[in-house]
This record gives sequence, C-alpha cells and structure tokens, in this order.
Amino acid sequence: MKDLHSINRLIEAFEELPSIGKKSATRLALSIAKDKFKALKLINAIEDVVANIKECEICGNFSEHEICDICASENRDKTLAIVENSKDIMIIEESGSYNGYYFVLTHIDDEVIQKLREIIKDKEIKEVIFAFPPSVESEARSLYIEDKLKDLNIEFTQIAQGVPTGVHFENVDVNSLAKAIKLRFKL
Amino acid sequence: MKDLHSINRLIEAFEELPSIGKKSATRLALSIAKDKFKALKLINAIEDVVANIKECEICGNFSEHEICDICASENRDKTLAIVENSKDIMIIEESGSYNGYYFVLTHIDDEVIQKLREIIKDKEIKEVIFAFPPSVESEARSLYIEDKLKDLNIEFTQIAQGVPTGVHFENVDVNSLAKAIKLRFKL
Repeated sequence: MKDLHSINRLIEAFEELPSIGKKSATRLALSIAKDKFKALKLINAIEDVVANIKECEICGNFSEHEICDICASENRDKTLAIVENSKDIMIIEESGSYNGYYFVLTHIDDEVIQKLREIIKDKEIKEVIFAFPPSVESEARSLYIEDKLKDLNIEFTQIAQGVPTGVHFENVDVNSLAKAIKLRFKL
Repeated sequence: MKDLHSINRLIEAFEELPSIGKKSATRLALSIAKDKFKALKLINAIEDVVANIKECEICGNFSEHEICDICASENRDKTLAIVENSKDIMIIEESGSYNGYYFVLTHIDDEVIQKLREIIKDKEIKEVIFAFPPSVESEARSLYIEDKLKDLNIEFTQIAQGVPTGVHFENVDVNSLAKAIKLRFKL
C-alpha cells in the first residue's frame, strides 16, 4: 500500500526469513500491525535470542552457555554425529533416537580437523557418524574427513539412505530407492 | 531443546502468528538465532510498525496518519466498499479493480451505522458495495445494513459469487457453483 511504509518494510523483513513468500510475509506483517501486544512479545523474544544464544565452543550447536548441555554432559554415548547445522541436532534430539555427542560442520580446514581430534580424544569417542542428508558432496566430505582421521582407532559410519515411512516409491528419488534395495536386511 | 529457553520462547511467539505451525516457527526462530543482523532488522521493522501504524479515523484501514491516503483523496469514485478487514483493502487495491472508498466493518451497532451515514454524506457516495467473502452471515449483515440505510438515496450491491479462474468445478463449493450458474451473463 502506498502510504504504509512501515508495513511494507516489515513485509520485506519477513520475506528475508526462510520459506516466507510475499503472501505469508504480508499476512504476518498485518497480524502484527493489528495486535501490538503480540508485536511487543515477539520483539522481546527476538531480543532475548539475540542476547542469549551463542554457539557452543566445542560442537558449534546453539547454546545459552559457552559449552552446550550436550557437550557438558558426561552421560552420552561415546559416539560423535557430524551434522550440517544446529537445526539437524534439534531434529535428531527430538526423535529420541540418538544419545551421543554432535559436531556442526560448517566447513573443512586443518583447524576443524584438529578440533574433531580433540573432541574424539576428550570424549573417548569410539564411532564417528556422518549424519548428512545424502548427496554426492556429503559423501565426498565424509570420505575426506575419514581419511584425515584414519590414524585414530575409531569406527566411521554414515546414516542409512532409503525409503522414508509412508512415502510411495514414485515420490522417492532413484538413488534412495537403489540404496534401500542394496541395504536391505533380514526380518 | 532443553537448554535453549530463549529459542523455545521465540518459537512460541512465532506460533502465535497466523498460519505458522510448530515446524515453520522452529525454522524462523533458528534462522534468527543464526543471523543476528537479520534479527535486529526484524526488531526494528516491528518497532516501526508498532510506533507508526494506526487505524484511519474514518474507515478503520491501517494508516500512518490520522486519516488514510484513500479517505484523504478527493479523486476516488463515489462508491463505498464495506470490507471485513484492512487486509482485504490491501488485496483489492493491489488488484487495481476498484477506485472508490472503503469501510472496515468490525462489528455493527448504532455508532457504526451513524459513521457510515456520515461517510456517505461527506463523500457523496452513490453506491455501497458489500465486499465480504460469501457466507450466510455476511449476507445477513449486508441486508441489516441496507435496511438501516434504506432512507438514503443510494444503491446497494454485493460482489459476485462464482467460480474463480482456473479452479475446477470439483474444487468449488456447491453454493458458488449454483450462484455462478444463476448469475450467468451473455458473451
């Protein structure tokens, strides 16, 4: 709208967030214009995140402390899941299917490899699990890291690729279907 | 996540916005945790809306002034579209298919009817258009308002109900299809 500069600016700010198109951004901006209490609550919550959330110095996960709760725990399994981002940690944690440590891999260089070595030593890690979404790049990355750490006496595994629950074959990519058949197991 | 209180609080704040489920709220909160510059930009834009957006004293539309640009204009058609909310004004304006005035009807009472009378007089309105999404309630509301204003020498119309472009009949409700057939017109 012509004279609604501040609403237009808010629509643009929302559009910069992931998966928010023009339509959703408009709906969000208008709901905020309508409900100032909701608006102030949201401002408060964002400010709180900006002030309190940092990256764990060990694994790179989001944390409210220098060291996140997972890295600080002594009761996790001696496995280290390398993931692409903090969100994947959140999803895996919520699935309740894993109880080891994590490492967020944003890039690979000598420093990162050295950091992985230190974590593996400190936490007495027995197995490194590459928990990336399947792709040619992620496989290359996994093999590279394995090569750099192969002198350590640990196992390297990667999460299984296959057909997700409830998804019809026609909606699964050929690679995943091929992997699902190759990785078949006895009932 | 257990120790991420501020992120959880932000997820909850996002979930209170329209059409934002748990999954979208989480995605939004994490993207904000990751990019503090984006977060501050969003805070700024929300603060700006809270500080600057008010309701137009005449029509109830969002406005940065006491009187919105549309109500302040002398160059609009002498029609008054009664809508359910400011968002509908935005959508109609963007469609470019209407050039009259508007009124946001949040409720009906004597004061609202009086307000409508004043606008109709001030703007020399010749036609009141009920621009509500079709429903039994909105039809009842339209008839009630028409009855209250019938002493004025103006026309009352309502937007056509029918089959939207590109939508198959199987996806259109029976009422709209019936209306579309009833309101058929010569090519």
